[in-house]
Amino acid sequence: MNKRLGSRTIKLENPVSISTASSVVGTKEGEGPLREYFDIITEDGLIGEDSWEKAESAMAKKSFENLIKKANKTPEDINYILSGDLLNQSMGTNFGIRDLQIPFFGLFGACSTMGEAMSLGSMLIDGGYANTVIAGASSHFCSAEKQFRFPLELGTQRPPTSTWTVSGSGSCILEKDGEGPYITHITTGKIVDMGIKDSNNMGAAMSPAAIDVLSAHFKDTGRDPNYYDLIATGDLGYIGHELVKKLMPDEGHTLGENYTDCGILIFDKEAQDTHSGGSGCGCSAVTFAGYFYDQLKKGKIKKLLFIPTGALMSQTSALQGESIPAIAHAVAIEI
Amino acid sequence: MNKRLGSRTIKLENPVSISTASSVVGTKEGEGPLREYFDIITEDGLIGEDSWEKAESAMAKKSFENLIKKANKTPEDINYILSGDLLNQSMGTNFGIRDLQIPFFGLFGACSTMGEAMSLGSMLIDGGYANTVIAGASSHFCSAEKQFRFPLELGTQRPPTSTWTVSGSGSCILEKDGEGPYITHITTGKIVDMGIKDSNNMGAAMSPAAIDVLSAHFKDTGRDPNYYDLIATGDLGYIGHELVKKLMPDEGHTLGENYTDCGILIFDKEAQDTHSGGSGCGCSAVTFAGYFYDQLKKGKIKKLLFIPTGALMSQTSALQGESIPAIAHAVAIEI
Repeated sequence: MNKRLGSRTIKLENPVSISTASSVVGTKEGEGPLREYFDIITEDGLIGEDSWEKAESAMAKKSFENLIKKANKTPEDINYILSGDLLNQSMGTNFGIRDLQIPFFGLFGACSTMGEAMSLGSMLIDGGYANTVIAGASSHFCSAEKQFRFPLELGTQRPPTSTWTVSGSGSCILEKDGEGPYITHITTGKIVDMGIKDSNNMGAAMSPAAIDVLSAHFKDTGRDPNYYDLIATGDLGYIGHELVKKLMPDEGHTLGENYTDCGILIFDKEAQDTHSGGSGCGCSAVTFAGYFYDQLKKGKIKKLLFIPTGALMSQTSALQGESIPAIAHAVAIEI
Repeated sequence: MNKRLGSRTIKLENPVSISTASSVVGTKEGEGPLREYFDIITEDGLIGEDSWEKAESAMAKKSFENLIKKANKTPEDINYILSGDLLNQSMGTNFGIRDLQIPFFGLFGACSTMGEAMSLGSMLIDGGYANTVIAGASSHFCSAEKQFRFPLELGTQRPPTSTWTVSGSGSCILEKDGEGPYITHITTGKIVDMGIKDSNNMGAAMSPAAIDVLSAHFKDTGRDPNYYDLIATGDLGYIGHELVKKLMPDEGHTLGENYTDCGILIFDKEAQDTHSGGSGCGCSAVTFAGYFYDQLKKGKIKKLLFIPTGALMSQTSALQGESIPAIAHAVAIEI
C-alpha cells in the first residue's frame, strides 16, 4: 500500500504514458481560440445523423477511430476502453463504441468523466492488468440542451451564469511504455453538495468539489499550487473559476496566474459570448486532448494538474427540488 | 502482465476477499423465495420519500449504511466506492451516497453494474491502490417503469417476454485481507448488439452478451462449465436463460443444471407471476449480496461464476428506433 499518499491520493509506481490523444469538436469550438489544436472539426451539428443524440455517438466514434488510427493500432491492441457522457444511460458512448469490440467499463461522472477515466485507466495499467487503455468522454451542446434544459427551437434566453455545453469528444491512449507525458498522481473526488439548486449556475455548484479535491491533493502530496506550471479545472467557467480563486485561501492555498479552467480557454469571451464559458464532459476532454496534450508534448507545459469537474444532477432531480451534488477528480501529469 | 489470461481475463495475484454483503429490497422481493436471505425488507415502495427516484436513493443509502455497520467500519475506513444504477445520470446512487463522503467512481453498466463494480474494485485492491472498497448497484421497479416504459398509474399490460425490475440495492465490501469468499478471476464484457429492438424482451437482447463473455471466460481460463458449482447470469429471466442454454453449445460448451439466472431465482414463478422473471441492476446485486453470499459463506456453493448482464439502451435510443447494445461482466468467486 505504499502506492497511497495520504487519504485520497495514489502515486503510480510506474508513471503511465499518455501516448496519443484525439479530439473531435463541433463548429463553434472549431471557431474558438483552440481551433488549431483539434484533430477534426465537424461541419455541422448533426454530422450526417438524424438526431442530436446519434450525432453525439457519431462524434464519439470518430474520436475513438481517429485515436486508434493516429496510434497505428487496431482495436485488438486495446485492452480496455473507459468512457462516458452526459446523456441518459450514456447513449453517446454506448452507441459510439459498440462497433469497436473492445472490453468496456462504462463510467458516469458527468463532466468529471475524463478525469475518472484517466484515473481508473492508469491504475489498471500500473497495476499490471493492461498494457493499453483508452480513456474518453464526450458531450454535445444540442443533445445536452434538449435533455437538461429547453428544446433549442424555443430559443429560450440563457441567464448570464449559464455555461455552453461543448460539442466534442476527447480521448487518449494510456500505455505502460511510452514517451509520455506521464500520469503520476491521482486524487479521487468525493461528492460535495453545498445546496446549490440553480442548474443554470453549474460553476457555483461544482466549485466546492474542485476546492475539496485540490485541497486533498495538496495535503496528500505536500505540494503547493506553485509546483505546477498549470492547474486547470474542467468546466467551472468564469464564475466557478472566480469562486475557486476566492475560496482556496481558506484552505491554505492561493491560486495564482497558473490556475485556469477549460471552460474559459475553449471559447472567446468577446467574439463567442457564451456567458460564463464552456462546460460538458467534452469541454475538459477536448481541451486536454487538443491543447494541453500539444503543450505537454512541446514542453511548454511541464507539470499539469488536470481536474475535470462534474455536476451529478438529473433533470428529474432538479424538477424534484433537489440540490446539485458535484464531484471532481485530479490527475497530475508531467513530461 | 502475467495477471492477464488470454485476451479478456484477469487472474488476481492475491484473491480479493468479499468480507461483508448487504441487501435491501422492496416488499415484493421480500415475499419471494429468497426472502430469508435479505438484510432489510422495506415496508412500502416509497420508503418515506415523496418520489420513486428519492425512494431508490434512500434504498441505496440504507444498503451502504447497513453494509458499513455490519462490517464494524466507518466511512473513513473505505478507500473507494464504485456504484451505479439505471436512473438518468445515476440519481439513485449519486443522491444515495452523497452524505457518506467516500471517494467515488460512478459507473454506468446498466444491469451489469454489480459485475463492473466488483471487477474494477478488486483490481484496485489487488493492484495495491486500496485496502477496502465498496461495490454496489441498485434499481427500483417504480422508478424504472416510469423512466423506461409507462407511468404506473396507466396500468399498462406487460407482454409475456417482459421482466420485472427488482426493487433492491445490493452492496459488498471488498478487502485485501479477509476470510473470503474470494474474487479470483475477472472477464470483462464487450458491447454486443444483435439488432434486438424490443425493450420488452431484455432477455433476448442481453443473452448474446452473456454468451460472448462466458465463451471468453472459458477460453481464457481453460475451464469448462463443470468447473463451477453454480453459473449465474444477472437478469436474463426465463427467456434469456433459455437462449443462453440453447446457444452456448455453438460456442463449444453445454450448460447444465448448474446454470441459473438471478432473474429466475428472485421471484416465485407461479405465486408471483412476473412473466419472464426479474431484472434491473438490483436483481443480480441483491441475489448475490443476499443468497449467493450466504451460500458461499456456508460452503454450499464453493465455486461461483457470477455474470451480471446489462442492456445499454435509453428511452431516447428506443424511441429513435435503435437496437439494444448489451454487455455482461463475469466474476469468478471461490471459497
